Amino acid sequence: MINRADCERLDRRDPLRRKRAAFRLPKGVIYLDGNSLGALPRAVPGRMRALIEQEWGEGLIRSWNEAGWIAKPAAVAARLAPLIGAAPDEVICADSTSVNLFKLLVAALRLRPARHTIVTELGNFPTDLYIAEGVRELMPGTHLNRVEASGLIRALDGDSAVLTLTHVNFRSGRVHDMAALTAAAHGAGALTLWDLSHSVGALPVDLAAAGADLAIGCGYKYLNGGPGGPAFLYVARRHQGAIRPVLTGWMGHAQPFDFAPDYRPAGGLTRLLCGTPPIFGLIALEAALDVWDGVDIALVRQKSVALGDLFVRLVEERLAGQDFVLASPRAGAERGSQVSFRHPEGYAIMQALIARGVIGDFRTPDILRFGFAPLYVRYQDVWDAVAVLGEVMADRAWDAAVHRRRAAVT
Amino acid sequence: MINRADCERLDRRDPLRRKRAAFRLPKGVIYLDGNSLGALPRAVPGRMRALIEQEWGEGLIRSWNEAGWIAKPAAVAARLAPLIGAAPDEVICADSTSVNLFKLLVAALRLRPARHTIVTELGNFPTDLYIAEGVRELMPGTHLNRVEASGLIRALDGDSAVLTLTHVNFRSGRVHDMAALTAAAHGAGALTLWDLSHSVGALPVDLAAAGADLAIGCGYKYLNGGPGGPAFLYVARRHQGAIRPVLTGWMGHAQPFDFAPDYRPAGGLTRLLCGTPPIFGLIALEAALDVWDGVDIALVRQKSVALGDLFVRLVEERLAGQDFVLASPRAGAERGSQVSFRHPEGYAIMQALIARGVIGDFRTPDILRFGFAPLYVRYQDVWDAVAVLGEVMADRAWDAAVHRRRAAVT
Repeated sequence: MINRADCERLDRRDPLRRKRAAFRLPKGVIYLDGNSLGALPRAVPGRMRALIEQEWGEGLIRSWNEAGWIAKPAAVAARLAPLIGAAPDEVICADSTSVNLFKLLVAALRLRPARHTIVTELGNFPTDLYIAEGVRELMPGTHLNRVEASGLIRALDGDSAVLTLTHVNFRSGRVHDMAALTAAAHGAGALTLWDLSHSVGALPVDLAAAGADLAIGCGYKYLNGGPGGPAFLYVARRHQGAIRPVLTGWMGHAQPFDFAPDYRPAGGLTRLLCGTPPIFGLIALEAALDVWDGVDIALVRQKSVALGDLFVRLVEERLAGQDFVLASPRAGAERGSQVSFRHPEGYAIMQALIARGVIGDFRTPDILRFGFAPLYVRYQDVWDAVAVLGEVMADRAWDAAVHRRRAAVT
Repeated sequence: MINRADCERLDRRDPLRRKRAAFRLPKGVIYLDGNSLGALPRAVPGRMRALIEQEWGEGLIRSWNEAGWIAKPAAVAARLAPLIGAAPDEVICADSTSVNLFKLLVAALRLRPARHTIVTELGNFPTDLYIAEGVRELMPGTHLNRVEASGLIRALDGDSAVLTLTHVNFRSGRVHDMAALTAAAHGAGALTLWDLSHSVGALPVDLAAAGADLAIGCGYKYLNGGPGGPAFLYVARRHQGAIRPVLTGWMGHAQPFDFAPDYRPAGGLTRLLCGTPPIFGLIALEAALDVWDGVDIALVRQKSVALGDLFVRLVEERLAGQDFVLASPRAGAERGSQVSFRHPEGYAIMQALIARGVIGDFRTPDILRFGFAPLYVRYQDVWDAVAVLGEVMADRAWDAAVHRRRAAVT
């Protein structure tokens, strides 16, 4: 049996151990929800103060050029490109993940005009499904085929325009085999569009090696860009010239400051910009990305798997017989950087955990979800989190929450 | 002839004079570009520090509920509703102006399914024209009729689905008669969609009194929300239930945290949200809107017209015979809060002005544009700006810039 001293030893040997100091983490909290909102990097507050007080306050309109604001969508994206196996000019930061998915789903259908079906997974993240529904309604003749993960390859056929999947499932944490699914899609003549929200910064992603066509992703989870920060989108260079944007805003124009009456798309990915770039979010994300300097993502993955394995083992050892059922793949290689357990009283248990400073989250109907951001979560945190979970169960600390909820329903 | 002492006297009598202290303005600068990027309200840096260090850093994921982040799109919009003659539940903050225009143009075409034409002004702000082009391409059979301002009413016919206009023209500053044009559109069976980017916070806007159907607007000009901050959209209550969103992201779902597989629109304007709300921009805008507490927008308008009139008069008196041609309406009532002059060397003159601390902007082909944000621009600033313009012309300070530009072109 492993004990806390073993976990501390693992922390001392952890090659990423120094990275934790790059974050401001609240005292008395074990934060296992960095897969939903990443923690605050220490570099961000000062950089944001300079943005607000100097660049905006003193520089005013001049800062669009003099502080380089206008170039931030491309510049910030270039910083994260290495994390996803992209060239710097294959990624750009813009809008939200949902809006970017809309742009690229429409683009994919336009790149395959003789085909009409969007193939995706039934259990995909809901906004991905909803956006696809919106595109189906908008583009006459479009079909949306939502199938179980095991049936995806079978679902690909001559009418498939695009296979769109979230790389790591938000509930179970299961990782799709990007290379195999991309090959299958290409074999059927379809494009692939990957949502990297739950994988970028958590595990190695190599869009180029997988031959992926399109991707989107989120800046505020493992990239720690802050609440509602801008998302990014990826288009393989071979497709960039053929993309006809659907959100034809001025920032995607070839010469926005000519104020010409007719739309003419910019070269490269700039054409996928739409409105004025969200500078607050871009600068926060840029500062947050400094954390990744010198980080070997293979080491991040190694630690992520080890943390998840440790968590599964400790929950199963120490809470045996208490109705926790693993809802994630047991094999670390098939799992992203999160572990989910089902429990009939999952909601109440998570409330009790949060009240005691262990922050994970709950996903309907009965899933307790724990994320392990390897840059700031330690092995001892995993130990302590399970210890607190044990206390919560021993004290039946979640009873009160169950009763409150039942009272509210009746 | 008016002199500087007269201007100082006007400032002392200005009922808005105390508002200037609510802004941080750089020393040595006369800022006449608040119509492009508003100045920094003093309340913003502290509020942003609290957002970043406490709400994000300490509260982490909990702040979506505990700090009310999730409610900010509606709450911040409710603060600006009085400035545009809207009820609090008729406005919501989201995305960019361009993205919001896309949402509402599609919505308008869906509300008038038997009609296919978007009518707009040739000289509309380019992103408005570009987005309309994108919608035309996307929705088969859609026509885009771009006409001169004088021909708008004539252009409305039985195929017109929506008349979309920017309330104040970005080049000339001319104000459209919102009530008259809305009545004409309604007479032809069409809806109206107003872009308020250059009017909100600059002059009284009364969407309800005008009977307007839809509107969008920008948070970072006269509302001082900061670079690339979120925009807003308005839908008159009578239309809200019938709006079928096109960007069907999870934040517009009736129950986003049920993570249901099928899209079901939320009630009211929430359905027009798409992705995760941009919290940095929303909080900055919220703090910036404090400036408007107790401000009578009629007084803002009065001062705005007076500043513009003074600027026109001083330029024409003091720079007579130097090729400045007024490009804005002479009558203050027909003008927004900006004044434009044409000059063959407009670009170079504006560069020289900026180098001497008078910040306006240049719009192709030959327009020098000066904005007067009445909350922080004084009569003495107008005097001083024209004095500096006089020095620039007397010194031919712009010559160097002309030569640099000519050298660069050849």
